[in-house]
Amino acid sequence: MNQDTICALATANGVGAIGIIRVSGENSFKVVGKVFKGTNLSKATSHTVHYGFIMDGVETIDEVMVSVFHSPRTFTTENSVEISFHGSPHIAKKILEVLIKNGARMAKAGEFTMRAFLNGRIDLSQAEAIADIIASENEASRKLALNQLKGGISMEIKALRADLLNFTSLVELELDFAEEDVEFADRTALLMLLDRIEAKLKDLIESFTYGNAVKNGVEVAIIGKPNAGKSTLLNALLKEERAIVSDIAGTTRDTIEEVLHINGTAFRFIDTAGLRETTDTIEAIGVKKAKEKIASARILLYLYDELENTPEEIAQFVKEVYREDLKIILLHNKIDLTGDDSDIFDNSVKNLIGDSTDFEIIKLSAREKTGIDILKGSLDAYVNNLKSDEDNVVITSQRHHESLQKSLLSVKSVRESIEETQTTELLAYELRNALESLGEISGEFTNDEVLGNIFSKFCIGK
Amino acid sequence: MNQDTICALATANGVGAIGIIRVSGENSFKVVGKVFKGTNLSKATSHTVHYGFIMDGVETIDEVMVSVFHSPRTFTTENSVEISFHGSPHIAKKILEVLIKNGARMAKAGEFTMRAFLNGRIDLSQAEAIADIIASENEASRKLALNQLKGGISMEIKALRADLLNFTSLVELELDFAEEDVEFADRTALLMLLDRIEAKLKDLIESFTYGNAVKNGVEVAIIGKPNAGKSTLLNALLKEERAIVSDIAGTTRDTIEEVLHINGTAFRFIDTAGLRETTDTIEAIGVKKAKEKIASARILLYLYDELENTPEEIAQFVKEVYREDLKIILLHNKIDLTGDDSDIFDNSVKNLIGDSTDFEIIKLSAREKTGIDILKGSLDAYVNNLKSDEDNVVITSQRHHESLQKSLLSVKSVRESIEETQTTELLAYELRNALESLGEISGEFTNDEVLGNIFSKFCIGK
Repeated sequence: MNQDTICALATANGVGAIGIIRVSGENSFKVVGKVFKGTNLSKATSHTVHYGFIMDGVETIDEVMVSVFHSPRTFTTENSVEISFHGSPHIAKKILEVLIKNGARMAKAGEFTMRAFLNGRIDLSQAEAIADIIASENEASRKLALNQLKGGISMEIKALRADLLNFTSLVELELDFAEEDVEFADRTALLMLLDRIEAKLKDLIESFTYGNAVKNGVEVAIIGKPNAGKSTLLNALLKEERAIVSDIAGTTRDTIEEVLHINGTAFRFIDTAGLRETTDTIEAIGVKKAKEKIASARILLYLYDELENTPEEIAQFVKEVYREDLKIILLHNKIDLTGDDSDIFDNSVKNLIGDSTDFEIIKLSAREKTGIDILKGSLDAYVNNLKSDEDNVVITSQRHHESLQKSLLSVKSVRESIEETQTTELLAYELRNALESLGEISGEFTNDEVLGNIFSKFCIGK
Repeated sequence: MNQDTICALATANGVGAIGIIRVSGENSFKVVGKVFKGTNLSKATSHTVHYGFIMDGVETIDEVMVSVFHSPRTFTTENSVEISFHGSPHIAKKILEVLIKNGARMAKAGEFTMRAFLNGRIDLSQAEAIADIIASENEASRKLALNQLKGGISMEIKALRADLLNFTSLVELELDFAEEDVEFADRTALLMLLDRIEAKLKDLIESFTYGNAVKNGVEVAIIGKPNAGKSTLLNALLKEERAIVSDIAGTTRDTIEEVLHINGTAFRFIDTAGLRETTDTIEAIGVKKAKEKIASARILLYLYDELENTPEEIAQFVKEVYREDLKIILLHNKIDLTGDDSDIFDNSVKNLIGDSTDFEIIKLSAREKTGIDILKGSLDAYVNNLKSDEDNVVITSQRHHESLQKSLLSVKSVRESIEETQTTELLAYELRNALESLGEISGEFTNDEVLGNIFSKFCIGK
């Protein structure tokens, strides 16, 4: 356990009515006590708040409220203090300086949460959930993160892991009696447990598609010729929802991204500026560019109309870009202009594409805002289909996803070594592997590199 | 007393480890209690912190720590609760929504502080000091604001006002015995008190020049011909100090402003782009523009050299722009090029300007960075001369400055009515006037418009 005293600003940067500086470590009361004029903090009851002043020698820095938390009933499990001051960044800086002068040091990114993990108060997936909660921008991601913080994922994994650990002990016991050729671990029961574990792992792995959609949004590529009505469609979608239209920082200069929230899920509409100029030669450069563009997309909206497109080029395009994990929605636009013949046109498209390729056609008029609700319903349905059950645990982290896939492979190896009646030594080895990969999720098996990687993404003060 | 329950985010906007929502009002415990799953807040001891969850019905919004503060030992003097949550703006919004659904309402800007004032915990100048502390960006302004929060200004004013009130009561008593022509109030003693009050008011009014410099910085105008070396000088000043160079928002398009901090005071260097083109005809349009430019400045730096300027035009310029409250510093630049004859040149300048006009000459080479320290010393000395004494109360607020000037006028009117032996009625009237203007500073006399104006400048949550 790291016993030095760490401090950091815990509230958002900038000017606010209140700012909070958090201090943690065995000597927190002593360190803060040196600069606090008010109650004797070392004698204060846990979970109490005290009025006073932060002093730098004889000079008053600020009038503050100080909360005292005794180990182990604290976030880090260490003695902790929270200093609530007048929220000026300048004062924050002064208070941190005087704390450091008196024996504290600046906390590293995520160090408070890392201590909570290292001191055993939370497991690794819960630590990660805290970062997710803080970053949550919508209802769905907040709920998933909170569920994870409550231990949803870890509990499921831990229960399975505990069962597997029992078998492993029995198998290892067999190794001690190797010469007697006894079998303590019931292989049939072990295979049944492996079935349960595999099923659960597959469920969790599958839930990532939904979890990822919730956490990072669903990428929607919009393709269409220059005058197909992409802007009009986007405006119709966004305005009707009174959604937050935003430019996402970090996207490339020539990619326009707008975000529409439907039922708490963010749909990120990607419209590549570069493509606009080349869509009239869509068979040539167009499709290549379009493919690049929709490589990361989950949904493709292809906007066409009877005046500018032929069924042949549409069918050709769909066949070119089709992949199993891409939902293709063809948007037959400008039906206010072309009227009743639209079915004939769309039937040609359907016939040309054929039955083996999955897609959907929605008729709309972006200009007159007809069909917009159907499109939104279809987007919403896409996300709803991803989630299997409201109460199920959902994976949202890339790291968990990878650990689960690794676990699934090692469980399969255990199964193989039983089914192929390999040596007990090999079985024991495979079991240990499986236990380790399952343990990576909750942090029961981990290493400094992984930890460093996880906590460096936290902000200072968390 | 306003008894409804108000709530607001009290920490800075944006993502942080912790966010704080503040709730105040008689029913705070009841309102928060409805959404808090944890301790029974109504039964909790004051100044204690409780772990639990904020719920919207059966749905958990976030895991939180709730601090309970019982009336009257709170910021507003009302029952108050602080909710510490995972610092996501989305969660802040959700918690505020659920609080409002359960009987709270969003606080207006500055409403917590306004309640603290209306409930008598702090006076008006202290309330204003809170806004100043939060906005303080350097040591000097933090110290002045903290001194004001501790009641520095109010105490001095209140003591004088209390003495004046005694006399007023005696004078008003005389009115009751008007027919008997008695004099309860000793006119000589009253005049002595007025001397003391006037002296104090003048001190405070004078301190505003310093207070304003500390709070808003000192405006320094730089004048010089296009190749006089203004940029080189600014760079030399700023780089050597490793100062924060910043563009201040809100300055006019064609005004360049850079800020240099010397000993905690901000010097704001104003260089009007427009002037640059006309400085070669400085006698004509030049001076007019320069005058406009330095109208708000406290310090003028006039940059010249022997190659481009004549003593005559420098002297002419100084005479044109001279005012009593402008410190004029003539910067004899490029002494590395012109050498030892500089004294002869400067003596001509001095002789031409004459003794009645106050100014200073500093020789420097902006390019070689000689003389820069002398210039900075001179700027620092300017601010030091403004403050009379470290411990003196210093006025930083425009509103206080105006109230003090009004008070000084009414005290003078009281004096006149005594010295000119006006009627007791008139004296009593003038005394009431003086009491009122003195009371405006601490808020003992005030009106809704003034209050609205003061608190609307606060942020929500304060």
